[in-house]
Amino acid sequence: MVLSDIETPAAIVDLDRLEANLDRMARYTTRHGLALRPHVKTHKSVRVASAQVRLGAAGLTCATPRELETMSAVATDLLLAYPLLGRGKLSRAMALPADVRLTVSLDSPEAVMQLADAAASAGREVGVYVEIDVGMRRVGVTGVDDAIALIRQIERCKSLEYRGVAFYPGHIRERIADQEEGLARLRADLTRSLERLESAGCRPPVVSGGSTPTVWRSHEIAGVTEIRPGTYVYNDRGTAEIGACEWEDCAFTVLATVVSTAVPGQAVIDAGSKALGREPLRGVAGEGFGAPIDRPDAVVVRMSEEHGVLDVSGTSWRPRVGEQVRLVPNHVCVVVHLNDTMIGVRNDEVKETWPVDARGRGGAPPAGSLGKAAAKSG
Amino acid sequence: MVLSDIETPAAIVDLDRLEANLDRMARYTTRHGLALRPHVKTHKSVRVASAQVRLGAAGLTCATPRELETMSAVATDLLLAYPLLGRGKLSRAMALPADVRLTVSLDSPEAVMQLADAAASAGREVGVYVEIDVGMRRVGVTGVDDAIALIRQIERCKSLEYRGVAFYPGHIRERIADQEEGLARLRADLTRSLERLESAGCRPPVVSGGSTPTVWRSHEIAGVTEIRPGTYVYNDRGTAEIGACEWEDCAFTVLATVVSTAVPGQAVIDAGSKALGREPLRGVAGEGFGAPIDRPDAVVVRMSEEHGVLDVSGTSWRPRVGEQVRLVPNHVCVVVHLNDTMIGVRNDEVKETWPVDARGRGGAPPAGSLGKAAAKSG
Repeated sequence: MVLSDIETPAAIVDLDRLEANLDRMARYTTRHGLALRPHVKTHKSVRVASAQVRLGAAGLTCATPRELETMSAVATDLLLAYPLLGRGKLSRAMALPADVRLTVSLDSPEAVMQLADAAASAGREVGVYVEIDVGMRRVGVTGVDDAIALIRQIERCKSLEYRGVAFYPGHIRERIADQEEGLARLRADLTRSLERLESAGCRPPVVSGGSTPTVWRSHEIAGVTEIRPGTYVYNDRGTAEIGACEWEDCAFTVLATVVSTAVPGQAVIDAGSKALGREPLRGVAGEGFGAPIDRPDAVVVRMSEEHGVLDVSGTSWRPRVGEQVRLVPNHVCVVVHLNDTMIGVRNDEVKETWPVDARGRGGAPPAGSLGKAAAKSG
Repeated sequence: MVLSDIETPAAIVDLDRLEANLDRMARYTTRHGLALRPHVKTHKSVRVASAQVRLGAAGLTCATPRELETMSAVATDLLLAYPLLGRGKLSRAMALPADVRLTVSLDSPEAVMQLADAAASAGREVGVYVEIDVGMRRVGVTGVDDAIALIRQIERCKSLEYRGVAFYPGHIRERIADQEEGLARLRADLTRSLERLESAGCRPPVVSGGSTPTVWRSHEIAGVTEIRPGTYVYNDRGTAEIGACEWEDCAFTVLATVVSTAVPGQAVIDAGSKALGREPLRGVAGEGFGAPIDRPDAVVVRMSEEHGVLDVSGTSWRPRVGEQVRLVPNHVCVVVHLNDTMIGVRNDEVKETWPVDARGRGGAPPAGSLGKAAAKSG
């Protein structure tokens, strides 16, 4: 089966590029002595997570109960990089297989209390990373005093173990070459925070950091022991735009078909917001929503739910109705979440397909059906 | 079971409001003698489509093969308001139950050819609406001559039947009171086009129109015989903003939990772009992505995949970690597409749940499993 046999829109993964991306990150973290705990939110699949574990990942990072459940078939060391709140989510996490070493990152006394009670009732010990804000202003305690108070609270709980601190420098969105100022401030802030934690007797066993824009500079941030990159497996237009990958490293595309050329200067494809996502490029509007992998100058400038409008007016390309196009989306993580199946290709030939196992919110199918034979981490 | 028992994020439908919305549209179309062919893209569910058919819908409108397959269990008169291109999509549509009266809207000679061949091979007769552009510049032939040429081509094909013209005035996005100019131009354009079609011997049996912003003024557009509204079943922040519904008519909310209040002036909820969608309000950036149904002034101003940042700085509301919030999204159709299940409530009490049957792209489960017992339309 080749690409032209596939019904569109469809999610295509170039297997050579995927493997190269996985290798590159494994080599980078090994060289710099960083623990790699990849975030599965990007791929949500047992297939890709198993490869990450085989290549030496110390564990996996999840954001939802369903991701935890799915990934418990692949690795025993799981981080939920998200506060675990509410009876439903807590009970699902506490029902994970007994051999799962679970860690949760959080930033509030309420989250510590709820987690401690649930863990005690379940007879589990759960690890905690205290989330600290380093400037993104999303989650994370905004001062070291708050971090210390949370750590003291955690240490008082029999069912919890203080395992470290986590941060996410998602506010550094400049191109790699322009990150110097942001990184310098981050380094200074983090060093000061770690010193204060140390002198309060709260030295973090793990300092977990990393974001896609800054990921290849993680080794320059003193103190960091582990990173949690996600997007690197597939990459996307955003990652390429900031220079955290080359355009040729984009492993994921949405295969689409030109469905109309009735309006001059444009080609309408069958990938709209329900297939390509509607994420701005680097957080700014007006840069379009994706571009053909072989023609990055023809941008998807407008979208409806099932229509994407490619502006071809600035190019010599005049696609025909029925022609296929492969688009690199701005932000691959949200696009994977729109799909049930990934189609793996080499040189346009379909080699395998795999499910997006952790898409959705409900309970995952029993671990056995997800290929329990997959390699298990440490 | 009540709302506070539900794991978040979750898709909640207020059943009283849903029923009122369904009734209102049925009454409007009956009063004005318009055929109602609701677009199922908004709800993608047998449950809601069956109610639409019970209330007198003349048929249903779909955008994808999966929607067609799913809806063939509910109604026999189906419109695919999307060109049917490529072997995969064509063969799925041709495999619909024999009692389905299928119509496809399209705008190119290539689409006519592919459809004619597939219909002939399958031994089916398929109807065609010729899509005409009325100013949105998305799809649709841009001149009446092109429409006439397509109609002649359709009439030459034994397997096809010319059933009318379709248009979508999606460019009229002003608030209802400010639509006069756009509607006047639309009326004039449409009248001229219909006159030219008539004198060319191409009088359309059906003139199919309507878009959410203009839907309640459809009767003011001379010539229109049928409308295809979708969003009206649930409504959303966008629909309320343009005045096509009241805020109190919003039947759909995303139930979320406050997960962090560490950063002053904001509350972070567990509904980000993967639960709430990232659609601009009325197509403009900077208006946020959703708002609590009981506090429309506290807007979701930023989002990550699993985080929504509610700006509460301009309000006296100081939500606690663990508190639940119900958000009206900007654009409900893309949010439904992110979910597998809808939870129907009355006065915060859960009354029923139903699947988003036509979510996704692959083949739908066999019609029997979708409740074939549902009312069938004439």
